Amino acid sequence: MIAEKMKELVSNSSVIRKMFEEGKQMAQIHGAENVCDFSLGNPNLAAPNTVNEALEAVIKEEDPVFLHGYMNNSGYEDVRNTVADSLNRRFQTNFTSESIVMTVGAAGGMNVAMKALLNPGDEVLVFAPFFGEYRCYASNVEAKLVIVPPNIPSFIPDAHILANYITPRTKMVIINSPNNPTGVIYPESTIIEIAKVLEEKQKEYSTEIYIFADEPYRELVYDETVKPPFITKYYDNTIVGYSWSKSLSLPGERIGYLAVSENIVDFKELMSALNVATRILGFVNAPSLQQRMIARCVDEVADLNFYKKNRDSLYYGLSEMGYTCIKPDGAFYLWVKTPIAKDTEFVDLAKKYLLLTVPGSAFGCGGYIRLSYCVSPETVQIALPKFNLLLEEIEG
Amino acid sequence: MIAEKMKELVSNSSVIRKMFEEGKQMAQIHGAENVCDFSLGNPNLAAPNTVNEALEAVIKEEDPVFLHGYMNNSGYEDVRNTVADSLNRRFQTNFTSESIVMTVGAAGGMNVAMKALLNPGDEVLVFAPFFGEYRCYASNVEAKLVIVPPNIPSFIPDAHILANYITPRTKMVIINSPNNPTGVIYPESTIIEIAKVLEEKQKEYSTEIYIFADEPYRELVYDETVKPPFITKYYDNTIVGYSWSKSLSLPGERIGYLAVSENIVDFKELMSALNVATRILGFVNAPSLQQRMIARCVDEVADLNFYKKNRDSLYYGLSEMGYTCIKPDGAFYLWVKTPIAKDTEFVDLAKKYLLLTVPGSAFGCGGYIRLSYCVSPETVQIALPKFNLLLEEIEG
Repeated sequence: MIAEKMKELVSNSSVIRKMFEEGKQMAQIHGAENVCDFSLGNPNLAAPNTVNEALEAVIKEEDPVFLHGYMNNSGYEDVRNTVADSLNRRFQTNFTSESIVMTVGAAGGMNVAMKALLNPGDEVLVFAPFFGEYRCYASNVEAKLVIVPPNIPSFIPDAHILANYITPRTKMVIINSPNNPTGVIYPESTIIEIAKVLEEKQKEYSTEIYIFADEPYRELVYDETVKPPFITKYYDNTIVGYSWSKSLSLPGERIGYLAVSENIVDFKELMSALNVATRILGFVNAPSLQQRMIARCVDEVADLNFYKKNRDSLYYGLSEMGYTCIKPDGAFYLWVKTPIAKDTEFVDLAKKYLLLTVPGSAFGCGGYIRLSYCVSPETVQIALPKFNLLLEEIEG
Repeated sequence: MIAEKMKELVSNSSVIRKMFEEGKQMAQIHGAENVCDFSLGNPNLAAPNTVNEALEAVIKEEDPVFLHGYMNNSGYEDVRNTVADSLNRRFQTNFTSESIVMTVGAAGGMNVAMKALLNPGDEVLVFAPFFGEYRCYASNVEAKLVIVPPNIPSFIPDAHILANYITPRTKMVIINSPNNPTGVIYPESTIIEIAKVLEEKQKEYSTEIYIFADEPYRELVYDETVKPPFITKYYDNTIVGYSWSKSLSLPGERIGYLAVSENIVDFKELMSALNVATRILGFVNAPSLQQRMIARCVDEVADLNFYKKNRDSLYYGLSEMGYTCIKPDGAFYLWVKTPIAKDTEFVDLAKKYLLLTVPGSAFGCGGYIRLSYCVSPETVQIALPKFNLLLEEIEG
């Protein structure tokens, strides 16, 4: 008797559950230390000490009615100010508390933005490969997800190809850089080209097209010279969605924000709509205690060196064996071409070696797998020879 | 360029904002101490000390990766167990961790339940007067809110009248007891009659009709002999939504749960759907730190005596003056008949006396106002003579 729309999602979810159970069984039979699970994007780093210290200080020092109480649905004004100031300092932007909405993580933020902007039938463009949950978020507001095919082998979007997919119903383009699942960071030239195409299409169709910049991985960057451009500086109709889930290793706490360009069309009306959407979708507001913590920790970042070491071991290790890998400049994912055409077949073969991976087809791009390297360095070391044996088996 | 559906909501929201600004202006002109604001349902009690102590202990004692990390979208298993045990102990029920979903407050929980169950066009029945946000939640899933008219003067629903409003498309009935805005607690006999009507209608139409028991005020009860019946014991197709916002004075923290009858139709499929809905609506999971706190504070309650004193002063005070009030057995609202027919007119008149109230028409029931008495006892004492003057003015 569940809703029609939920039926397929529930059955997909039971497939994932089955995979998870399968992994647990493997661990029982072969020992957990021999199973290399690269399937989960779950930070395995502790939050910086300063985060817990700030939480304790907030609880001790701040008035409990204020601390645990309701505030404006968009968040505490001082916290939004702190976030705005931090962004302005780091990216030479012009945000104020008025342009920030605190959100229940990045997923909450994207749902709020879609609710505020999209009408049923509106088109949301994503570049394959893409985070599969975008399908659900678009479906929540009856919008249509339109997939721009992958630009192989760079996996950097081609703005001219994008242009072919824009119609009068296009209202949003999702840009996710550093990218899940590829780890690729889109260069400034790409952002400039995309902005140009969107400006032209807005004029051509007399519509507004919004970029939603989904940036939970913004701080997870391994090369100081390859930082993701801050998109509000290139394109006015931009909403940036952020979460501290990865940068502070707080995924369970559900704390993030939306930052809206002050030059976006109908700025004030949109900010009201985001505020109302936060309320009526049932979030009401981002968790208050975590907001207070952010007021004290806005510029903290967890120790990314941990992920960088894993990235280097896996990327160079697998490449030397003969795997074709995309070098990830950010996030904690490695995108690997499967040496056999069918990615799901490769994922099944890999299980024989106790290697758990996710097929690229789950991200709208077959023929690849995603390895999530938020795992221990030991897991990487145990996994490398297994990947070698697997390749040898395939190549005969 | 915001979504069509948002336009009216944004304009309503600016009306509320205007009221809020008006209140601030009044405070500036007349002094904050002279303005009596009964408009906000925002707990003004501090959370019990044990809550902050538990938060500090959790931060100190528990592994930070676990504490701030992802868990099953339905919540930590031990926390769900603790909630189930607490309910079983208190209400002689049979919940297990499998029947509990931790939610981002009661609003989050209701949205998750509606997403899991409702198809576009399904009908959701509410008894007037009702919490206005239900309109938005039903609209989020394209369901149709059907209003059962108020049963004046008791404001206890009449099951026989309810029966006339049930159609083959009825899929949910919301029961909110203790009630916002009336403070009324529905007696056991009413719950039994409603259950009987719903059982009959399910048979008649070969449909399933779910009760959603919205119970954020369950612990706010002023008479030990008038406790709200636990509805899963009377009707199998029941989902209970709870929040600690009021009972622990934590409205900003967004922590609550759904408890599902083990005898509900398609129990396992529904639990999966609730789990998936939590994920895809963007909540992902209830805030992890607050879940860990609940594991230690599940049976704590803030000092309700505070509200009881306000209730008594207001209820007896206004009744003696000649106002017709519904005696609230629970929640922190007083429902008062307006001495002139038009409630909005009365609300405007009251402003002259610096009394801020909410018209009943905002809850689908004109001719009444709601006074929220989560205010200081001093505010009540200052307000009483003002209400008297107001009545004298009206009665000439």
